[in-house]
Amino acid sequence: MPLLDFRTLAAAYFLVGPELSHADPVVPILIASIFITLGAALGGLLMKWLKQPAVLGELLVGLAAGNLGYYFGDATLTVLREGDNLSRIASLALTGPYNLSEATLQVLPPSPHTDLLAKLLSGPQGQTYMSVYAFIDVISRLAILVLLFLVGLEISLVEMKRVGKYASYVAILGIVLPMILGMAVMKLLHPGSPLAADLFIGGILTATSVGITARVLRDLGRDTTEEARIILGAAVIDDVLCLIVLAVVSGLAVTGKISLASIAITTGKAALFLVASLGVGVWLTPKIVRRLASAGVHNLKLLFGVSFALLLAWLANVAELATIVGAFAAGMVLNSFFDKEVGGTSLHELLTPIESLVVPLFFVWMGIQVKLETMASKDVIIAGLALTLVAIVGKVAAGWGCPPTMNRLAVGFGMMPRGEVGLIFAGIGKAVGVVNEGLFSAVVLLVMVTTVLAPVLLRATLGANPQAHPRSGSVA
Amino acid sequence: MPLLDFRTLAAAYFLVGPELSHADPVVPILIASIFITLGAALGGLLMKWLKQPAVLGELLVGLAAGNLGYYFGDATLTVLREGDNLSRIASLALTGPYNLSEATLQVLPPSPHTDLLAKLLSGPQGQTYMSVYAFIDVISRLAILVLLFLVGLEISLVEMKRVGKYASYVAILGIVLPMILGMAVMKLLHPGSPLAADLFIGGILTATSVGITARVLRDLGRDTTEEARIILGAAVIDDVLCLIVLAVVSGLAVTGKISLASIAITTGKAALFLVASLGVGVWLTPKIVRRLASAGVHNLKLLFGVSFALLLAWLANVAELATIVGAFAAGMVLNSFFDKEVGGTSLHELLTPIESLVVPLFFVWMGIQVKLETMASKDVIIAGLALTLVAIVGKVAAGWGCPPTMNRLAVGFGMMPRGEVGLIFAGIGKAVGVVNEGLFSAVVLLVMVTTVLAPVLLRATLGANPQAHPRSGSVA
Repeated sequence: MPLLDFRTLAAAYFLVGPELSHADPVVPILIASIFITLGAALGGLLMKWLKQPAVLGELLVGLAAGNLGYYFGDATLTVLREGDNLSRIASLALTGPYNLSEATLQVLPPSPHTDLLAKLLSGPQGQTYMSVYAFIDVISRLAILVLLFLVGLEISLVEMKRVGKYASYVAILGIVLPMILGMAVMKLLHPGSPLAADLFIGGILTATSVGITARVLRDLGRDTTEEARIILGAAVIDDVLCLIVLAVVSGLAVTGKISLASIAITTGKAALFLVASLGVGVWLTPKIVRRLASAGVHNLKLLFGVSFALLLAWLANVAELATIVGAFAAGMVLNSFFDKEVGGTSLHELLTPIESLVVPLFFVWMGIQVKLETMASKDVIIAGLALTLVAIVGKVAAGWGCPPTMNRLAVGFGMMPRGEVGLIFAGIGKAVGVVNEGLFSAVVLLVMVTTVLAPVLLRATLGANPQAHPRSGSVA
Repeated sequence: MPLLDFRTLAAAYFLVGPELSHADPVVPILIASIFITLGAALGGLLMKWLKQPAVLGELLVGLAAGNLGYYFGDATLTVLREGDNLSRIASLALTGPYNLSEATLQVLPPSPHTDLLAKLLSGPQGQTYMSVYAFIDVISRLAILVLLFLVGLEISLVEMKRVGKYASYVAILGIVLPMILGMAVMKLLHPGSPLAADLFIGGILTATSVGITARVLRDLGRDTTEEARIILGAAVIDDVLCLIVLAVVSGLAVTGKISLASIAITTGKAALFLVASLGVGVWLTPKIVRRLASAGVHNLKLLFGVSFALLLAWLANVAELATIVGAFAAGMVLNSFFDKEVGGTSLHELLTPIESLVVPLFFVWMGIQVKLETMASKDVIIAGLALTLVAIVGKVAAGWGCPPTMNRLAVGFGMMPRGEVGLIFAGIGKAVGVVNEGLFSAVVLLVMVTTVLAPVLLRATLGANPQAHPRSGSVA
């Protein structure tokens, strides 16, 4: 028997594959998680020195990593920053007669970059990229639900009702003003563009993505102020109104008509969800919780809290609202009674470690997906900056829906970030053919600038609360 | 302009697709998570009445859900319980010219069940099943790392060294006895089987999957006892030895020779990892932590702790050891100094909410993947029960490696579960052609019985610690 037979080993290895070494498929995900977590910590530490909210650092670290990684040809980052495109590619590869590489060429427009992606995805790491992408994407979507649930937990329905009137003013102004300003910009820059395109761009500007604001308010210890309640209330109303605007403008773009039926259905569903979750929730949930508590379910607080948040997120989505609206509503419903009915550590404290691990990941991931190279064109930059300007002015002016005793500027800045809602809206515009590549990139610029400016401007107008200990973020 | 134009709406819907309603791809995952979490809570509650560890209830709820769901034709459960097969199918669909349905027919043996799966995976929910599977699978793999990290955090290296001698005895006996007994059973049941097959079956019986035992010890509040340390130390040694056995028997099965080179490489890598992680870790980690603490990184405890656990899990896998060995080693390294160096809430308390959300999911998921129908044959049941018997006797007898003052029976029962390690071993045997379908099903039976019996037998021999508050599990 030969003592050193490498060929035997190689043959065994080849035959039984990677399973011989019980190679764990979770390992690439571990590596990605370590890097993102450390990146988030670094960004947070940087912002601590600059006295800015941690979330800004996370966005910037992600942005730098994604773009530098791409610039220097790092394969992993080049693939991962494609974000949603990856899920479209995987979807086609799974349902059609294509492998990942062929699917890439089908999904993306022909370009050297597309060829590079196709090559990388057909390489030995192709599937690993996909599994890392899928996991980080889901975790960051769950993270934003956790964040909005926690924000909701700090706000009672009673307090919310008190500011309801002003929140509605802010929301309505924040829809009407950006819409008008956006259409005006389009008329100036592209005088010949069809009405549907102008309406679409105006519609994109009506969106409010409250995730970043919610996070900044928590970073600064300001999430229980009147201003915070107005911003969050207005954001929920904005989500409903924005949905109606979307139904109108996309109907108009597709058919040239306005369908009152679709408006009625959209509004009805959203109203039904809000009435059912808040109205019935406040009445029914305490009864269920009391019964479960008396049945002696031990880890009840965390289990029920999280399940309830996920449940309402799901139902909100059934009503065509954003899942974060559901998670936020769940928090508000539980706010008034949950910690009183169920003893022990507060739900808030139980969720804080989970929040501080996963929420920074969302913002780093958001930063990674920003492609600066799509903005390298004069037309895009001009259109983008003009739209950004009116996007900021429109929402900041909406802050004047508040009474003068409040910090109107802070409310306006809080409503400013467009985030993923604006991108979804623009994506639909691209799909129905009224938003071209250049306008889409301009919208990306607008989303990026409003998102990155919001933490800085909110910090400047609100200031950090010296009493409150920052609860969110990797580094505070 | 018509007031109610449903066709307009339908056209818009058709054109812009599901994105119109910002349908969140995370929703199916929310639904699955809610169901699994509630199932885990139910199982835990049941075990509370029966005074058994919660983990047993989680396994049984998963087992019942998976098998009943399959029996009554529930599409989601029928697909999800395929477990690893799904990742093989997805992998082929992504890399080859197949869609999910064609890939299913390629990967699985022809049968009506395969046809059903192919149909379900080509249906509208095909991709949803895949994304739910991928997420739950990754989360449960991460969960088991969290569990073993927490167990490691309770055990200091000094204490571990004190029991090192006995742990080695238990590990070696636990390899030798099941190997001999397994080969004897094979000679009795299949007198004509080749030596390689007998060795493989013997090898499968040498595996120890410590996840379930670690969880039961935590459920019972017994994870800081001498017996716990011996079991965990022996399990680490067992992982190394089992790897060597696997290298030997798979080399023998493939080439008919024993490759000393592969044995040397395998042993060297494992030894290098253990020396580096434990030796260097204990010396270097405190210095790094002290420096980071003085740099004012805030959420340091959770961030560093989790990153360190993930890092060692990754390195363990590089050394071809199980990732859980790495997570466990990380816990032991941090045990002696971490909470002393870094103030605030202990790492243990910070991780407990995360543990109680994700760990039960692992065990429910494990239960869901047990296919009772593969055991519905007389031969399988006879072989399975005979192997189960010697698997139990072999490991229980290994408990006599401890001094008589200890609870030898409990140590033996703790080493008993084979879990996924046994299945990986058997899967390789199937891949190299020495383990046939019948024997594979017998191994599944053996894994199932040893895994489900362990909590009951450990509870009976150790008893619950009335002082300790159960820290793990959805319902305690």
